[in-house]
Amino acid sequence: MAHLDLEKPLLERNDRLAAENKKRLNAAGVYMVDLMASPGAGKTSTIMATIDTLRERYRIAVIEGDIASDVDSQEIKAAGIAAVQINTGGACHLESDMIARALGVLDADALDLIIIENVGNLVCPTDFYLGEDSKVMILSVPEGDDKPLKYPGIFQISDAIILNKVDTLPVFDFDREAFFSSVQGLNPAAPVFEIAATKGQGVKSWTDWLASRIEEKKRAVL
Amino acid sequence: MAHLDLEKPLLERNDRLAAENKKRLNAAGVYMVDLMASPGAGKTSTIMATIDTLRERYRIAVIEGDIASDVDSQEIKAAGIAAVQINTGGACHLESDMIARALGVLDADALDLIIIENVGNLVCPTDFYLGEDSKVMILSVPEGDDKPLKYPGIFQISDAIILNKVDTLPVFDFDREAFFSSVQGLNPAAPVFEIAATKGQGVKSWTDWLASRIEEKKRAVL
Repeated sequence: MAHLDLEKPLLERNDRLAAENKKRLNAAGVYMVDLMASPGAGKTSTIMATIDTLRERYRIAVIEGDIASDVDSQEIKAAGIAAVQINTGGACHLESDMIARALGVLDADALDLIIIENVGNLVCPTDFYLGEDSKVMILSVPEGDDKPLKYPGIFQISDAIILNKVDTLPVFDFDREAFFSSVQGLNPAAPVFEIAATKGQGVKSWTDWLASRIEEKKRAVL
Repeated sequence: MAHLDLEKPLLERNDRLAAENKKRLNAAGVYMVDLMASPGAGKTSTIMATIDTLRERYRIAVIEGDIASDVDSQEIKAAGIAAVQINTGGACHLESDMIARALGVLDADALDLIIIENVGNLVCPTDFYLGEDSKVMILSVPEGDDKPLKYPGIFQISDAIILNKVDTLPVFDFDREAFFSSVQGLNPAAPVFEIAATKGQGVKSWTDWLASRIEEKKRAVL
């Protein structure tokens, strides 16, 4: 597709800057996770629940990506956590130069974990490496069990998958078995965490996984 | 942004082809509406409810846009309605050349209404004119009342806005008043239809609006 060919030099430049971000974070021993999801799947509430669970143990900061507005970063700052807002203007994903600028604002040496909240989108963020240690996606129950069939790319490249709003399973016609079977076909290695972020339900299995990744990186860097 | 500058020639080519699509549809007296929404907001179920209400009165066809899979077009064909599936491969929106190819398959002279189901995305479809008579967006209650603040572009360019899954308002923390106030600020001219597509609730106000647009075009073309 012409579209994608034109974007090739952009992607190469993006990957180069992403590698520099990664180098910078490795030097500081900071773990960075890129959270991706549709609009309204619960990225911010998952981040809030993650902060609640891990803030005693790790020093955390958040990079907030949005087309417009700063409502999410305001919420995170109100919880006493450092947050940098990136407004992409119109772009449907974050790029590594935006993350580089955000890292310039944050004090990496005083951090253990950076959570990136990508722009709400199941397509665009898939192609853009930001220098993160892992990409994690959230699907929410109201979106439907057929989403792995329709957006296979993001399910394939995710290191872990969160199924959010499982407290609403009784309200929606969501075939849990069909969902797990599709995910298994696309990405058998990725763990799937079933949570209800706003209620704290199931969050520990997800934060345990994340903490084990943070510890693993700390050991590798030392 | 470099990204957007590179896309300018693509957008110009897209608009040229879109104008040709429009000319073709005007000649045949066919109304075309472009339905946009996040993944899982209920595009297909809104289309099914629209077909149910209008199929006695109008000859309808559907153009289905998806990254991958044909589950939606299968559902529409099963209801006895002509449907053309477009798989974009990875692109996060439909473009006018894809619609031109779909129009080549459909018999426009035997139709009154074409409904385009765009790729699930609140960002990418905004910039791409396809030759449609109107763009309509769907937001669903589980996505949250703050979406107009975060994705203002799509709310601004929509000719009408559908708020779907209103039957789940009691389950979600959705501030209806805040939502209406944000939409009013961005796009005071667009009507907002509150529906629950899978239950048929509120659908008539939306299909009445669509039917009045179809009739208006028929009068203008004659």
